Amino acid sequence: MDDKRRAALLCRLGVIVGRRFVESLLLFGRVFRHKKPLRMKLIVQKYGGTSVANPGRIKNVAQRVRETCAQGNQVVVVVSAMSGVTDGLIKLAREVHPAPDDREMDMMLATGEQTTIALMAMALHGLGLKAVSLTGAQAGIVTDGVHTKAKIVNITPKRVHEMLDAGNVVIVAGFQGVDNAGAITTLGRGGSDLTAIALAAALKADLCEIYTDVDGVYTADPRLVKNAKKLEEISYDEMLEMASLGAKVMQSRSVEFAKKFKVPFSVRSSMNNNPGTLVKEETRKMEDVVIRGVTVDKNQAKVTIAQVPDKPGMAAQVFKAIADANVNVDMIVQNVSASGHTDLTFTLAKDEVPRARRALEPVLREMGAGGVACTEGIAKLSVVGIGMRSHCGVAAGMFDALAAEKINIQMISTSEIKISVVIDGAQADRAMNIVHAKFGLG
Amino acid sequence: MDDKRRAALLCRLGVIVGRRFVESLLLFGRVFRHKKPLRMKLIVQKYGGTSVANPGRIKNVAQRVRETCAQGNQVVVVVSAMSGVTDGLIKLAREVHPAPDDREMDMMLATGEQTTIALMAMALHGLGLKAVSLTGAQAGIVTDGVHTKAKIVNITPKRVHEMLDAGNVVIVAGFQGVDNAGAITTLGRGGSDLTAIALAAALKADLCEIYTDVDGVYTADPRLVKNAKKLEEISYDEMLEMASLGAKVMQSRSVEFAKKFKVPFSVRSSMNNNPGTLVKEETRKMEDVVIRGVTVDKNQAKVTIAQVPDKPGMAAQVFKAIADANVNVDMIVQNVSASGHTDLTFTLAKDEVPRARRALEPVLREMGAGGVACTEGIAKLSVVGIGMRSHCGVAAGMFDALAAEKINIQMISTSEIKISVVIDGAQADRAMNIVHAKFGLG
Repeated sequence: MDDKRRAALLCRLGVIVGRRFVESLLLFGRVFRHKKPLRMKLIVQKYGGTSVANPGRIKNVAQRVRETCAQGNQVVVVVSAMSGVTDGLIKLAREVHPAPDDREMDMMLATGEQTTIALMAMALHGLGLKAVSLTGAQAGIVTDGVHTKAKIVNITPKRVHEMLDAGNVVIVAGFQGVDNAGAITTLGRGGSDLTAIALAAALKADLCEIYTDVDGVYTADPRLVKNAKKLEEISYDEMLEMASLGAKVMQSRSVEFAKKFKVPFSVRSSMNNNPGTLVKEETRKMEDVVIRGVTVDKNQAKVTIAQVPDKPGMAAQVFKAIADANVNVDMIVQNVSASGHTDLTFTLAKDEVPRARRALEPVLREMGAGGVACTEGIAKLSVVGIGMRSHCGVAAGMFDALAAEKINIQMISTSEIKISVVIDGAQADRAMNIVHAKFGLG
Repeated sequence: MDDKRRAALLCRLGVIVGRRFVESLLLFGRVFRHKKPLRMKLIVQKYGGTSVANPGRIKNVAQRVRETCAQGNQVVVVVSAMSGVTDGLIKLAREVHPAPDDREMDMMLATGEQTTIALMAMALHGLGLKAVSLTGAQAGIVTDGVHTKAKIVNITPKRVHEMLDAGNVVIVAGFQGVDNAGAITTLGRGGSDLTAIALAAALKADLCEIYTDVDGVYTADPRLVKNAKKLEEISYDEMLEMASLGAKVMQSRSVEFAKKFKVPFSVRSSMNNNPGTLVKEETRKMEDVVIRGVTVDKNQAKVTIAQVPDKPGMAAQVFKAIADANVNVDMIVQNVSASGHTDLTFTLAKDEVPRARRALEPVLREMGAGGVACTEGIAKLSVVGIGMRSHCGVAAGMFDALAAEKINIQMISTSEIKISVVIDGAQADRAMNIVHAKFGLG
């Protein structure tokens, strides 16, 4: 065999081997694709009333949904009523009846979201996407029968799955469901967030995104603290304390639900592409951060009852009367008894003061207590962080910083991951900046 | 026994007999009441968009419903969307998508009636009545899946019955239903009337009342004929001819449904207490009335195709082309052939002329016909009456009356209970009055 023939043979062999190799690769690829398909992620996105306030904004949201789909995700969209619609309906109802029936209110209010889901589907069609809308009832969201503030008891998202499998973006009306008798119910305040998180849980979604008009959760209100920083992540418990403390990003209820069913969710803005804040289960790493954020609540009033007889059952009597009047009390402080009497102080929402006062008067007369003094113009300043549990001196540090700036502390209340103080409302913004700086959050 | 004692005895006996008599009467009454209770009548009332246009009008309707209840009736109320609401929603949809998807349109439009039913229930509560609202789906109105113009296939009014039995006024959203897949559908034009009549049939109601903004069906349009009279009653067939001829009280579709299921209904005004017109099955007595009414339709145009070759299949070709373009043709007249060619004339709705013309052009070129002449400014004048069947000379009388007043007849078309002529539109009102007088309808 001369060199020429050998080269030709080798070359031919090479071609054969090469073809076989490529064929095997292709075959392997096919088998591999078949056996382990790249799983599509399922994302639930919730858009609030301001994000869908008009046709232009609805089209913007549709663009965002398209981008999410283009990244290879399945998407379920939960929407609220267009901002202003719900208020308009309530006004209309009041013109017909001063105190409309709850069942009928739900029947009427549910139309707000029903309009948005249809418009959102149309907007997605306009971008060439397959999309279909479902009311809460159609999406299988079953609630109890407590109209205007129903609780979700069960979600059977069979139809959502079917429609996703058929290649649709599925748009679900937030805030609403159906009770066992087939009546339309609504979930009350923060209901659309709850719909999104509950659906994410029921669908075993990979992520739930709550789009709102803020960029995420901050170390402090950025309007009040210039160098406040957006948090990348936060634990459910911290978010709960932040939510209940007046960082009005979300209702506690939805966060509690997410915590219970371990649904990670992010809070982000529908107006930009910033990543937002991820709310999820606590991790070890999270504990390294002692203080997550500082919040201030100026919507509070302080009520002091003087000369309460210092005997068992007195506090119970006072707070039972207030609870019976449906007033929510926040902080409670009872001073040490002096000469058989004590002072009882608590805080509550400003606008509930008249109701609390009315409820208290007969009780106080009966128990022979002194007068009631109500102080508005106060503020509750709080620091929150799960790291607090394993770090000492947070309270001391906070009080120190305030004292150094001559800010007087009127009341103190603490939980495992939170310290709250009541101060003069006029000093609130300054105090917030001081504490924010003290813990190096900027 | 002296007279005095006899008188006393008789008197006592009289009292005893009298008491027994009264007791037996009472007992009989009890048994009678028990065995044959006075059956409550079930009335379905339908109120259109102008009748529920604002909170004030909704309260007025509630008053009317209360009166109907006070007369010992069970009442089912069917309502439309408040006037203007549907148009507003359509406008909104068009801002999001130029040609919105039908399924999503239905999802959105259904909210209009859903809002009204809730408001109506609230208004009835305000008058101390028990009332509850149901969407079309909740009321068991099942349709086919043809969105925006669905047909009712089945009504299972179980929930309506239950709620009536529980002492409620039941308010049902008109115009809407649900298909077998659970999607919300709407019934298209005249849909709320259809809901009312179909529900009346399914519930075996004693009467269906269609409240609208006219007083009933008149012998002629009262705005055009001064001495037009309201009809006390009219047969389904006459109503159908009146409806399709432009007496725009109701869509033919609902009348056809009522005829099919033998549902008597009355057409009356929600603004006054006048009795309206009862539409029902034909009775012997009805045939005594030769002419029921005169209608005029000025919304028509006349199309003449000249020089159509006089051979089989030409007319078929022409009207197939028009039908394929979804244009509805009304009257058709073909003149006697002369020299192997004929003229073909037909009428159609004015605004469909351009579409018809476009559809015709290729066909006419192909068949070698002459040009197309379209005449607007015509009117179709018709007389309707089931008595016509057994009375001769109606057509002659009509033509005579018009001729005497020098009104030229361009086309003639007749059915068993109707004669229509096409005349110059400018003469329509005068012609209507002449014919109305000729048949003594004033």
